[in-house]
Amino acid sequence: MAEAAAAANAAVAAAPDGVVRQRIDKMSGEVVDSNPYSRLMALQRMGIVKDYEQIRNKTVAVVGMGGVGSVAAEMLARCGIGRLLMFDYDHVELANMNRLFFRPEQCGMTKTDAAAQTLAGINPDVALESYTMNITTLEGFEAFKTCLTVAGCPADGRSNGGGKDGSNDGSGGSGRDGDGSALQRAADAVSRVDLVLSCVDNYEARMTINQVCLELGQTWMESGVSEDAVSGHIQVVAPGRTACFACVPPLVVASGIDERTLKREGVCAASLPTTMGIIAGLLVQNTLKYLLSFGQVTQYLGYSSLKDFFPTMDIKPNPGCINLLCGQRQAEWAVGAAERAVAAAAAAAEEAAEAAAAGPLHDSNDWGIEVMPDAADVATLQQAQQQALPEGLQFSMPSGGGMDAEQLRQEAVQDTEEGLDDLMAQLEQLSGGNK
Amino acid sequence: MAEAAAAANAAVAAAPDGVVRQRIDKMSGEVVDSNPYSRLMALQRMGIVKDYEQIRNKTVAVVGMGGVGSVAAEMLARCGIGRLLMFDYDHVELANMNRLFFRPEQCGMTKTDAAAQTLAGINPDVALESYTMNITTLEGFEAFKTCLTVAGCPADGRSNGGGKDGSNDGSGGSGRDGDGSALQRAADAVSRVDLVLSCVDNYEARMTINQVCLELGQTWMESGVSEDAVSGHIQVVAPGRTACFACVPPLVVASGIDERTLKREGVCAASLPTTMGIIAGLLVQNTLKYLLSFGQVTQYLGYSSLKDFFPTMDIKPNPGCINLLCGQRQAEWAVGAAERAVAAAAAAAEEAAEAAAAGPLHDSNDWGIEVMPDAADVATLQQAQQQALPEGLQFSMPSGGGMDAEQLRQEAVQDTEEGLDDLMAQLEQLSGGNK
Repeated sequence: MAEAAAAANAAVAAAPDGVVRQRIDKMSGEVVDSNPYSRLMALQRMGIVKDYEQIRNKTVAVVGMGGVGSVAAEMLARCGIGRLLMFDYDHVELANMNRLFFRPEQCGMTKTDAAAQTLAGINPDVALESYTMNITTLEGFEAFKTCLTVAGCPADGRSNGGGKDGSNDGSGGSGRDGDGSALQRAADAVSRVDLVLSCVDNYEARMTINQVCLELGQTWMESGVSEDAVSGHIQVVAPGRTACFACVPPLVVASGIDERTLKREGVCAASLPTTMGIIAGLLVQNTLKYLLSFGQVTQYLGYSSLKDFFPTMDIKPNPGCINLLCGQRQAEWAVGAAERAVAAAAAAAEEAAEAAAAGPLHDSNDWGIEVMPDAADVATLQQAQQQALPEGLQFSMPSGGGMDAEQLRQEAVQDTEEGLDDLMAQLEQLSGGNK
Repeated sequence: MAEAAAAANAAVAAAPDGVVRQRIDKMSGEVVDSNPYSRLMALQRMGIVKDYEQIRNKTVAVVGMGGVGSVAAEMLARCGIGRLLMFDYDHVELANMNRLFFRPEQCGMTKTDAAAQTLAGINPDVALESYTMNITTLEGFEAFKTCLTVAGCPADGRSNGGGKDGSNDGSGGSGRDGDGSALQRAADAVSRVDLVLSCVDNYEARMTINQVCLELGQTWMESGVSEDAVSGHIQVVAPGRTACFACVPPLVVASGIDERTLKREGVCAASLPTTMGIIAGLLVQNTLKYLLSFGQVTQYLGYSSLKDFFPTMDIKPNPGCINLLCGQRQAEWAVGAAERAVAAAAAAAEEAAEAAAAGPLHDSNDWGIEVMPDAADVATLQQAQQQALPEGLQFSMPSGGGMDAEQLRQEAVQDTEEGLDDLMAQLEQLSGGNK
């Protein structure tokens, strides 16, 4: 079959002069063969997305350029994402060829540089930043966080195409626990990315991403594929609003064995381009829904291929999370939630007052029809008011009330425990499916 | 960002000497970076697949090399499929760049040749056959069928790498209805492929694949993505055993509007690399389960991305299918099913007789325990015997019986109607999800 490869190479030379994709200033919906965005802009005409071109203002960081991350990066580039940050410490090997994206001739290159090479050719409109670094070391932790907060990146990072050059603060990290200094760091830093996608294959890297995103108050999405290659999951982590990665034990990738350790012992995890491609697709689909505000962003979505089972669930934050910073984010979220509840109640009341001032639409009529209070409106108002308030805040409406903070806490604990039971039951189903 | 593309091209030259992937005679499970099959062979050690290397003896035809077909072909090539036939009539355009696989420099090439070029570089162990043809014309229909039955292909087809050269029978097709000549053709031809994957975007091409596969008794898998890009499905079609494409109206791609017609009017369907990549992944995952006998092959699997809803169902063949050949395949399947039921009943009876001859395991005992007939065994036997027989066949066992053919037909009709109701209900849910 060596002839086949040779024939294919000959075909490259024989092909029409290679088209180089030119930069495009504005996405067009024009239906011509030469427009790379026509099928994406059609999402607007179909009523799916309100303003597709908003994607050019979005920045996504992909951490881990393996079988999931590389495909996720390619999907984002083809969708025309504005800026794409890519992180990995590893090189391309022939052993990666059973998954999509990398090609044999890229063996030996760093995964981030190989990806930047391919993606720049596919879509030069995307600003690519390629960071070859291990985020799990102390220095890597700080460098990673710096990359998410200021443009440009430390020493071993490399910005390809469009990334603004920025200063490297060069500070060595002093630890990543949820202590006072972390809280201080969190207060100082502001993220410059809209979303972080975790596509790593080990527990340590996930905990690193979790900590950095808690510090930055940065929403991220976790992904994973099981070691037997036949199941996987994606999960949204929004600091304070959902469980963080430390709130509950890891789900599908429960054993948390580092692939590198396994490889040294002459054993490796199985992988399939199908499972990894599907997980990458679900991850980026959720990303598009999140960034462009359409459909329903799913908080947790599992995939068990042997029986085509796709469990979904919501995982509430654990009030007893070992990461103190998560607790702080939860408190901040609760304050925000209370403020939103107050605003909702006020808006509902204002609407009700306006309706009352306007008087009944039909004061009397020939058919004896009476105007009754709308049961649904009353229920909505009561529901909004039942959102508990932390100390120091009061409902502005006479009918406002709510449970005290301790009562809220009790409820949250109970809810979380129920959530964990559900989780365990679903996990058992999942592992049953793998037998 | 043109500089970025230029920089990326420079990076190719600067990369370590391009590794050319050499042919490999036997798949190895050895865990070294240079082994492209280590992660696939690990599926055996993990207990998922019994004999992964069987994949090298399998042949799959992919019809339609668009956003689903090209990715499915890449997944199959990376998995080490033995032989891959690719069919498409179209050329690569910049307007295809919002989906995975094709690259801008391939614009102008036929999709099949561009795919063969890329895939030969990725995995030279795969025998690739590239057929640039429109299967929906009368000549295309016959040429397509010939490609599936004898090695090599008519005039406009091209065999790349490893495909045995065969003679082209050159016969022009005389029609493709389920008439006597079709039945005759069906009796003569033998398929040389293990599975056909339909990745086309129009009704006409699906009906063509359906007819050819009915004639050959060839199992195929259908796939489709909705015009608004946010839902899709895959479906297994096994002639006689499941619904054929003519048995029930098309599901998600219900309007059946030809994309080419739409394009001419300055309007195009929306598409996303995510949805298409997920459908390709689900399609090839089902293919691997089917070819390598693991997990559960799902007959119909839908994907509605807005709510992450994944309906599954079985669709029985329609006894009143407008395609007479489908009816014949159903009759053949019923005979086979009856034979299998007879064999199962005989095996169960033999087992029971052996058990009786051996006598009770404990004739009497100190605890007054009696040996009772096993209720489950009796139920299995009865169930097997309730499988109806067509005329001319009898159950070989004294207790054998069963309904007559008319009764069977009534039941089948009733079952199918119930199946259709379920279908419509699920479809309504699906379209509700898209609003």
